[in-house]
Amino acid sequence: MPRRILVLGAGKSTSYLLDYFLEKSSAENLHLTIGDLHPENLSESVKNHTACSVIQLDIFDDNTRRKLIAECDIVVSMLPARLHIEVAEDCIVFKKHLVTASYVSKELRLLNERVKAKHLVFMNEIGLDPGIDHMSAMQVIDRIREAGGKIVLFESFTGGLVAPESDTNLWNYKFTWNPRNLVTAGQGGAAKFIQEGTYKYIPYHKLFRRTEFFDIEGYGRFEGYANRDSLNYREAYGLQDVLTLYRGTMRRVGFSKAWNMFVQLGMTDDSYSIQNSDGMSYREFTNLFLPYSPTDSVELKLRHYLKIDQDDIMWGKLMELDLFDTQKTVTLENATPAQILQQILEDKWTLNEHDKDMIVMYHKFGYELHGKKLQIDANMVVTGENRSLTAMAKTVGLPVAIATLAILNKKIVTPGVQIPIAKEVYEPILTELQDYGIAFREYEVPYLGYNPDSVAS
Amino acid sequence: MPRRILVLGAGKSTSYLLDYFLEKSSAENLHLTIGDLHPENLSESVKNHTACSVIQLDIFDDNTRRKLIAECDIVVSMLPARLHIEVAEDCIVFKKHLVTASYVSKELRLLNERVKAKHLVFMNEIGLDPGIDHMSAMQVIDRIREAGGKIVLFESFTGGLVAPESDTNLWNYKFTWNPRNLVTAGQGGAAKFIQEGTYKYIPYHKLFRRTEFFDIEGYGRFEGYANRDSLNYREAYGLQDVLTLYRGTMRRVGFSKAWNMFVQLGMTDDSYSIQNSDGMSYREFTNLFLPYSPTDSVELKLRHYLKIDQDDIMWGKLMELDLFDTQKTVTLENATPAQILQQILEDKWTLNEHDKDMIVMYHKFGYELHGKKLQIDANMVVTGENRSLTAMAKTVGLPVAIATLAILNKKIVTPGVQIPIAKEVYEPILTELQDYGIAFREYEVPYLGYNPDSVAS
Repeated sequence: MPRRILVLGAGKSTSYLLDYFLEKSSAENLHLTIGDLHPENLSESVKNHTACSVIQLDIFDDNTRRKLIAECDIVVSMLPARLHIEVAEDCIVFKKHLVTASYVSKELRLLNERVKAKHLVFMNEIGLDPGIDHMSAMQVIDRIREAGGKIVLFESFTGGLVAPESDTNLWNYKFTWNPRNLVTAGQGGAAKFIQEGTYKYIPYHKLFRRTEFFDIEGYGRFEGYANRDSLNYREAYGLQDVLTLYRGTMRRVGFSKAWNMFVQLGMTDDSYSIQNSDGMSYREFTNLFLPYSPTDSVELKLRHYLKIDQDDIMWGKLMELDLFDTQKTVTLENATPAQILQQILEDKWTLNEHDKDMIVMYHKFGYELHGKKLQIDANMVVTGENRSLTAMAKTVGLPVAIATLAILNKKIVTPGVQIPIAKEVYEPILTELQDYGIAFREYEVPYLGYNPDSVAS
Repeated sequence: MPRRILVLGAGKSTSYLLDYFLEKSSAENLHLTIGDLHPENLSESVKNHTACSVIQLDIFDDNTRRKLIAECDIVVSMLPARLHIEVAEDCIVFKKHLVTASYVSKELRLLNERVKAKHLVFMNEIGLDPGIDHMSAMQVIDRIREAGGKIVLFESFTGGLVAPESDTNLWNYKFTWNPRNLVTAGQGGAAKFIQEGTYKYIPYHKLFRRTEFFDIEGYGRFEGYANRDSLNYREAYGLQDVLTLYRGTMRRVGFSKAWNMFVQLGMTDDSYSIQNSDGMSYREFTNLFLPYSPTDSVELKLRHYLKIDQDDIMWGKLMELDLFDTQKTVTLENATPAQILQQILEDKWTLNEHDKDMIVMYHKFGYELHGKKLQIDANMVVTGENRSLTAMAKTVGLPVAIATLAILNKKIVTPGVQIPIAKEVYEPILTELQDYGIAFREYEVPYLGYNPDSVAS
């Protein structure tokens, strides 16, 4: 009798996840059941695999969902995060382990005692970011601590980007994940972090002008802007006394300054609908955010409003998106500015079939050891194969898959609602990820503290 | 048996309101009952007036509140807007008219049919803004329509300011109302309006840089920024086809550009709490919003961040507020940035005992009549007596008082939940307000449309 893995939600980001299970199905004696609303989108090789059953599933169909969960040994939920809670409740009832790549919601956290009482493992945040970031950071932090060191600085940045060989636009960016995440990134409150013991707060409209630069050997220079709450993992990582704690998002240099144009105009706002957006030209959309003038062009009004010089590459970036086009039209009804901007960007930033994406992750660890201040920098770069086999799908899917099998094989046994910060969890997973080319390079560098320009006082 | 008026909530803004009723108590046969949580703050002349009873009332004490409402002939609620709904429900049960100066909430609007069925008048938005703005605008709009004209443009601005003789700071501003309203002004969504038939949207972080100027004869130049939703009254005013519709707030020239510094820094944010704000120096507070640097002063970091030149008066405005002071400290625990900024401003912008405030209102009406385009500008300026007898209290309180008596005297009879846009309502009130020096001056001016710089195309 094979061990039965149930995967709920098998969108295009799950290719590596499904392949992992199917490749190991005979050696590990696995049977995979996939429940999805649109199973017809699955590849033939998955659908026809002898160790795989595919079921059309509406997640709100309680009977079918419960029957599937009752019949399996472990559940992997790749559904949108808001849908996990129903699945989690069922998993407790039927005594099944659960794995997700999503942030732990308040509701999920509240299940912890019940999950523990039934000796279940509910592993979350085990994709890329969150996921590999947690594991790779804790591996270095634990190692420094075991040697007697004390962490004083931790900075961490992740970016989902386009690989250099497929980088064909002025923004050095293409969509490798849900485009909506990019358009609304940073909204919902000020970014908060600590630098050298001082709390710092950046409002959304300044976020993309407070970037830092860093070089990744062999890949050139990148920039990073702050995530909304760097302080969320302070306790989980055991960094209550750290002087600098900063988590951010990586882009190619110049992206953030250009993105800030959309923020300043108000085009990323997702809180209200534009009247009669359907059929509006891109030019008319742009003009909604500029002062009325009976005499001036939309172009000159925008240049003046955002203070864009004649020879500024910012202008080229806007032109490339056809923002002033009178013929291209919005095809969404009563859409928010953010939804319309997303349509405009999708015209230009969608991966072609043979385009490769690239994941970059960068950590800085500052620590004190035997009276000395030291620093370790670590980075990981993963390049995708093509539009289907993306680095994003690989770095999200493989940790989920490896964790799932490790739980089945009782290598991960500590019960509870958790994230992958324990050695029991991260060590075997990081080791196996190396077999797939997902690995960090580490560098010992002079300790600078938070002092990016290396200035003396 | 006198007619009984019940006033709920008698804060410092109600001086003119209470005096109006008491002065007319014998001629109009009125008795005034005041229910307030802190009636001890009322002036002796009010408390000791023979036609006045004062009761200590917790508005959540249902029994006492209902008893008071049951015993009166009409209720005036000067409570915070969120507390009106309980009072309104009681007014329906006991068949009493109701008057408030607040915006009509959704909940209140839903009572309309029940209010009509009982032949009651629930008059709202009858203070200054909303209030006098509605009435004075509708008076001109109705007059133009009666003459056969068609409105094509309506712009309206109101400001609560400090009178020139009491204007002693670089911001040309002091608090004449709840300071919190100023600090959070413009937040909660983009400003929306129409200019020459085009919808326009301004995000909060650009709001204070999209001002317009206007001159008020005898008072000099002012500026205005857009209110959040100018379109709310489009239907109520019958302006569905108007080409330009813009409502805004007036300040002295230069205020908005300086205020924008706080917006850019993130100091007006009211959505999160600062850790350990109690005891933090003003300088430390300012530094929360600036990049960390081991070598640079808070002053230079701010100058650089906001691009403030050496000789820019913006700098003087910040210095005047002691924003870089190391000795002055925040006295609020876990306060939001907005709450802390409010404390800093209240140090400097509170009216002295003999300071006079000033209310300015300005309307522009563009219309077509007999094939010609014409324009009427109208303005009202009211100056206060001192810190207690403010122009703000006068212009909010008197319309409420006059409307209350007019309802008692059956001059206003149309039932329902309403705002003062019907001639039956605004005509007697505007006429009586003139006796108190609250009057508009009108000017016929050349029609310009929305074209503030009068440029040719």
